[in-house]
Amino acid sequence: MSEACIATYRLQDNLADFHKKATAIAVGLTVGSWTDLPEARKAEMEKHLGRVLSVEVHEPEDSPNGERYADIRIAYPDANFSRDLPALLVTVFGKLSMDGRIKLLDLTFSEGFLSAFPGPKFGLDGVRELLGVYDRPLLMSIFKSVIGHDLEQLRAQFYGQALGGVDLIKDDEILFENPLTPIEKRVAVCMEAAARAQEQTGQKLLYAVNVTGKTSKLREQALKAIDAGANALLFNVLAYGLDALHELSSDPEIAVPIAAHPALAGALYPSPHYGVAAPLLLGKLVRLAGADLSLFPSPYGSVVMPKAENMAVKEALLSDELPIRRALPVPSAGIHPGVVPLILRDFGQDVVVNAGGGIHGHPLGTAAGGQAFREAMRASAAGIPLAEAARQHEALGRAVELWGIKA
Amino acid sequence: MSEACIATYRLQDNLADFHKKATAIAVGLTVGSWTDLPEARKAEMEKHLGRVLSVEVHEPEDSPNGERYADIRIAYPDANFSRDLPALLVTVFGKLSMDGRIKLLDLTFSEGFLSAFPGPKFGLDGVRELLGVYDRPLLMSIFKSVIGHDLEQLRAQFYGQALGGVDLIKDDEILFENPLTPIEKRVAVCMEAAARAQEQTGQKLLYAVNVTGKTSKLREQALKAIDAGANALLFNVLAYGLDALHELSSDPEIAVPIAAHPALAGALYPSPHYGVAAPLLLGKLVRLAGADLSLFPSPYGSVVMPKAENMAVKEALLSDELPIRRALPVPSAGIHPGVVPLILRDFGQDVVVNAGGGIHGHPLGTAAGGQAFREAMRASAAGIPLAEAARQHEALGRAVELWGIKA
Repeated sequence: MSEACIATYRLQDNLADFHKKATAIAVGLTVGSWTDLPEARKAEMEKHLGRVLSVEVHEPEDSPNGERYADIRIAYPDANFSRDLPALLVTVFGKLSMDGRIKLLDLTFSEGFLSAFPGPKFGLDGVRELLGVYDRPLLMSIFKSVIGHDLEQLRAQFYGQALGGVDLIKDDEILFENPLTPIEKRVAVCMEAAARAQEQTGQKLLYAVNVTGKTSKLREQALKAIDAGANALLFNVLAYGLDALHELSSDPEIAVPIAAHPALAGALYPSPHYGVAAPLLLGKLVRLAGADLSLFPSPYGSVVMPKAENMAVKEALLSDELPIRRALPVPSAGIHPGVVPLILRDFGQDVVVNAGGGIHGHPLGTAAGGQAFREAMRASAAGIPLAEAARQHEALGRAVELWGIKA
Repeated sequence: MSEACIATYRLQDNLADFHKKATAIAVGLTVGSWTDLPEARKAEMEKHLGRVLSVEVHEPEDSPNGERYADIRIAYPDANFSRDLPALLVTVFGKLSMDGRIKLLDLTFSEGFLSAFPGPKFGLDGVRELLGVYDRPLLMSIFKSVIGHDLEQLRAQFYGQALGGVDLIKDDEILFENPLTPIEKRVAVCMEAAARAQEQTGQKLLYAVNVTGKTSKLREQALKAIDAGANALLFNVLAYGLDALHELSSDPEIAVPIAAHPALAGALYPSPHYGVAAPLLLGKLVRLAGADLSLFPSPYGSVVMPKAENMAVKEALLSDELPIRRALPVPSAGIHPGVVPLILRDFGQDVVVNAGGGIHGHPLGTAAGGQAFREAMRASAAGIPLAEAARQHEALGRAVELWGIKA
């Protein structure tokens, strides 16, 4: 099977013959027709023929309207498509995506296909190395608000965040090129604030700058940011396509980690009937395309994803099934210091704790917001219950007073 | 309202206060917070503040589980984003797409935003002019199968289609760069077949060649195809992002019509709860990004879209609401000559009748397949019932015998 990529679909249909349907897909999306071909032609075409690997029909007895579905697996020969993600996705889920209730659950890549993807340039270990932090979750913070703010205001926000001991600060994904804070000036003032904060905290910091604008100028934007001192990038991958991320991440001159933002992902993954499953989209594909960090909805906030799906996204980012570096999971939304023990339980150490309101909304200010998280992490690492640590550490205490402890 | 783009959403929630939710979106996706701001700051920030234009709550009395929804319209100031589609989409449906059951129904663009989009370079009228066909629907045919075929086989298929009197022939969207039929060689043999057929039919023909591969090389691929004689392009726009189409279509050197293929669209539009509505995705956005032709599922085949949605896609492609050229609707799948009167009734003259199996599957062969369509069009134009015309014209007769007449 090393010369084919395998797609797993869930088809919902109350009447269909799923085995017949699977064969129609395997033939229709590859050689077009099969049974009518002369034998000699079949011999030539066999290397292009899709194959049905399995059809698992599920007919729950208690389904109210006779709902039934099947999970089917189809192998698509590598010979049919070029080694890029648009070609693979158009092959396995182009026309098919419009053919009834069908969802793309998973993809398994052939060795040949994988050989075109170096994957994350840094990944989990590389990002830890850049930061010199190996023994705890990383802490990321998000600007509170950015639109309509000038360079001085961003600098002040950035400095407050940096002082709190965060490891990464990311741009808001809705901050585009604008006259108040153009990318090279924004990077310059923020990196200067980072250096000043480092004198106090002794801690390194990555600033993930939002790379935006025309597709053909993304590389130029990224290099402009890097020239100005940016040491990480943020990228709205789904607005540009996975291949655009792949090109940025595999560019030798773009030697900084890239955080993939899931903007627009909600148009693709949440329906049980249509779209692309979150673990594939925000896990496997984003990692294959070279994201060093992948943001996705956390199980703790209002922007939810079922917990099992969260865990599957994490698994896809960290799994050794892919022969490329692991990407850092960044479960986002609804994160405050009282959630830290839960995050550690669910994700372990190899996670980025990512907070916005849970840092800026701290009663003692933004810097205290970051400190409260770090205190929560230290307590968790030492096995000290958060309630007890909250009594000993002011920043954490005030955070827990405001937001509580999530169990 | 000329300095804001307006998004219309459908939110489904059995409990939410939709007015409160609308305000939270308008503020949250623009300035971040509002009520807490000092008055002086409010004055500065007002030009960036999103505005709720309307909230229409629907609470059907007969909904079994108390389902209710609201259509809400929010205006997003242009000052908040750069004039490109990724920025607009990330602003209006980035994070929000993941915030419960929400679907993006429509977008209305400000004049300022629109000024960055020249739209289709040819459009409906331009394509008609290139072909010299003004008084009937256009006829497009699709290769029957292409994977594993060599240049001679493609040439023969192309010639058969061209002899049938089709106006356009499109590559299969799953034909990528491959050793058997690389783009420049494929174009050369097919355009040579087109010229030979034209000697017989006296008719011009556009060949829409699939532009594929790395995002950064799309322009180069397109120019390579054009240098080899290609007079149209096919593009899997959703695999690369709308901005990639915009860049191709607005490139002065790419002076041929572009047909946008809807591959992957089924991951985005069919759910009633999530995603982006088809008339926006395959109508307005694809046209704004510069597609001269837009393919979408027809109401006649197995790959269906509700009829009203089909009509709304058509409307979005042809409407004079946008100050750019009209794009040709190409309803696809399930098309045979017996459907022609229906297509004309539903779409009028300004449509591309697009067939694959309905041409190649003709009992007398591919050329007769195209001829049957042309005969059906002539009959419809002359007000002759198809059943009657089928008795007088052999190709049409055999087609109707096989596939029937759809009423």
